[in-house]
Amino acid sequence: MADVVRLDDPSITLVPGFRAAGVACGLKADKALDLALVSAARPSPAAALFTTNRVRAAPVLHDAALMDAGKPIQAVVINSGCANACTGQRGLDDAVRTCEWTARALGCPQDAVFVMSTGVIGQPLPMTKIGAGIRDAALALSEQGGHAAARAIMTTDTRPKEAAVRVRVGRKEVTIAGMCKGAGMIHPGMATMLALLLTDAAVAPAVLKTALVRVVERTFNMATVDGDMSTNDTVVLLANGQAGNAVLDDIHSPGYEAFEDGLLAVATELAQGLVRDGEGATKFVTIRVSGAESWADAKQVAKSIATSSLVKTAVYGQDANWGRVICAAGYSGVDILPERLCLRMSGDADSLWLVRDGAPYEIDEPRAAAILADDEVTFALDLGMGQAEATVWTCDLSHSYVDINAHYRT
Amino acid sequence: MADVVRLDDPSITLVPGFRAAGVACGLKADKALDLALVSAARPSPAAALFTTNRVRAAPVLHDAALMDAGKPIQAVVINSGCANACTGQRGLDDAVRTCEWTARALGCPQDAVFVMSTGVIGQPLPMTKIGAGIRDAALALSEQGGHAAARAIMTTDTRPKEAAVRVRVGRKEVTIAGMCKGAGMIHPGMATMLALLLTDAAVAPAVLKTALVRVVERTFNMATVDGDMSTNDTVVLLANGQAGNAVLDDIHSPGYEAFEDGLLAVATELAQGLVRDGEGATKFVTIRVSGAESWADAKQVAKSIATSSLVKTAVYGQDANWGRVICAAGYSGVDILPERLCLRMSGDADSLWLVRDGAPYEIDEPRAAAILADDEVTFALDLGMGQAEATVWTCDLSHSYVDINAHYRT
Repeated sequence: MADVVRLDDPSITLVPGFRAAGVACGLKADKALDLALVSAARPSPAAALFTTNRVRAAPVLHDAALMDAGKPIQAVVINSGCANACTGQRGLDDAVRTCEWTARALGCPQDAVFVMSTGVIGQPLPMTKIGAGIRDAALALSEQGGHAAARAIMTTDTRPKEAAVRVRVGRKEVTIAGMCKGAGMIHPGMATMLALLLTDAAVAPAVLKTALVRVVERTFNMATVDGDMSTNDTVVLLANGQAGNAVLDDIHSPGYEAFEDGLLAVATELAQGLVRDGEGATKFVTIRVSGAESWADAKQVAKSIATSSLVKTAVYGQDANWGRVICAAGYSGVDILPERLCLRMSGDADSLWLVRDGAPYEIDEPRAAAILADDEVTFALDLGMGQAEATVWTCDLSHSYVDINAHYRT
Repeated sequence: MADVVRLDDPSITLVPGFRAAGVACGLKADKALDLALVSAARPSPAAALFTTNRVRAAPVLHDAALMDAGKPIQAVVINSGCANACTGQRGLDDAVRTCEWTARALGCPQDAVFVMSTGVIGQPLPMTKIGAGIRDAALALSEQGGHAAARAIMTTDTRPKEAAVRVRVGRKEVTIAGMCKGAGMIHPGMATMLALLLTDAAVAPAVLKTALVRVVERTFNMATVDGDMSTNDTVVLLANGQAGNAVLDDIHSPGYEAFEDGLLAVATELAQGLVRDGEGATKFVTIRVSGAESWADAKQVAKSIATSSLVKTAVYGQDANWGRVICAAGYSGVDILPERLCLRMSGDADSLWLVRDGAPYEIDEPRAAAILADDEVTFALDLGMGQAEATVWTCDLSHSYVDINAHYRT
């Protein structure tokens, strides 16, 4: 593992060569920031991953075509308050116009603009407001604009999510930073909700894509809040090359491993941030499944547990109802052997073997209750069948989740 | 469709030749009824379906072996308050002892006793109480005992679920009745929670199994409350033959269709009853998917919508957030074409086309709000790809669901 230095007060504009802004253009009712703009000095190699939902929002369709054409990216424009999803041809036209206006405001090629939207599904983008927002944001771009941009992409998020690290790639210091948004409709599928990752490392496009796929699979795709996969999920990574390192043009290049480690650190912090800020969440829950025959099996069992409404409500109620964990493993679809299951529950200071070899073991209700009073709880399930393991992050299901989602649009 | 006559004040003991009882033996804290016993005059052909959860409770393992051996069944003993699941060898021994004691109390063969348990996972059966309960129940058996038996199998259910019909099979009147329990940990997999179906029809064992599979696939397997599939799900059907009809020994026998129609009516009413009494449910929601290329596709899309926490909370909040319905169809895994989707929402007195050809259509918020104020709401989604359709029943996700499940054990 390379030496990864976490940066204080993280924001995307800690990466040299990028400017950002966040402005309010009236998409949100309360005059909150709702349009973010990020700009590189010149078109930069980019890689992106999108939702696997068959219903893809207009900006996703637009951006996927850009990426398929291998276009470098110079600007990213993101609005909250409206997802521009299920909006038909009008939505596609609006996504194109958003990019056109951004290109004009920045003086960059139109096909170097990447667009993202998040918010309510099925309503058209208010284009007059978008136009004003783009003009304001272009004027406000600065090397201190990262925090405002991170606030401008929030919807039901209660706080911005930002992360930044520095690693040595060859002889050069490289910075990697990112921001993301998302609190509900969060479930791994490819990329989870909107995330923008920036770096000044010099990386060849194909290697950038490989790094993104490898890292997203272990981070954003392992985070779940409610099992609902969005129509707008997008993760995009831009590398402007300004650090001056020898270009990483192969995953065996010296320095690639350090770069991937840095990217992994940033993405892990952001993905965990999504779950910590999950709608109504009172607890951060880690589900670790080991002893599986394959990583895919381990992941499938872990996801089954992590999305169980009954497991999530029991954690909220601080009830050590471990039978629900075993039950969810049982219906995961993986051919587990019940008599081999071992389950351990851990908190900050204590842990208990609740199940050994498929039967109740160290059942100590007062100690279990004390563990479940902690803010962070881990359930580690060993299947006893092989060597593979996987970790998924989830949160509890609380009254507040119902509050937030019963009246989201109103 | 044969003439199916619904019986008033339904209970399982409306079927000639069966007696039942429900007693309190102290498994539930509040002295509520918690042990049910059902007895036939003689061993009767039986068919059963069990959970597909890999973690199967001890009674499921016991009964599956009985069914594999083709044993006729004379008695069914059911306890609530303890699931006898994840209890290892001790649990298996307890299930066997329960059958042994029941056989002794009734004077029937031990391998003619079918046992079911429901309640908390991971705790051993309190056998002293079970023994006393069996003795009391055997003495209490009567032809009026159906209602008490239906109450004795309840857990978080707020009301018993019973149904009974009469159909003409050949020249004879045949009665079919059933009871079931379940309000949470309800998700289709094979059979959903505990259901006991009785009939006085004369049916060959193989035909009984076929009828059960066909009916369960369209009823219990189409009901979902929370997406959690139980370790104990069991549906069992007993046919004592007392109606004296010519034995149905082939699905092409005259009268088979009438029998299946009657069984379907009983199972439909019970399965819908599970959902109506879903934990915390305030609304009964029908998801009908049509225009699919296959029934399996239609079912998969309908289930994806029916289990979405975001759809369920929106219905609870009476918010016509149709984008969540489209979103859930999109991530169902079926290769839908977004531009062909048409979505109609209906209540008691009005209905709206919310989406036509993939785009918002008849969006009328006051009328949508009025529809969502009804107790029963239907979402009909047409995929525009084929002729197949499927219907799934679900309920909303409310604050009460979280209340009930945060502290189930305590």
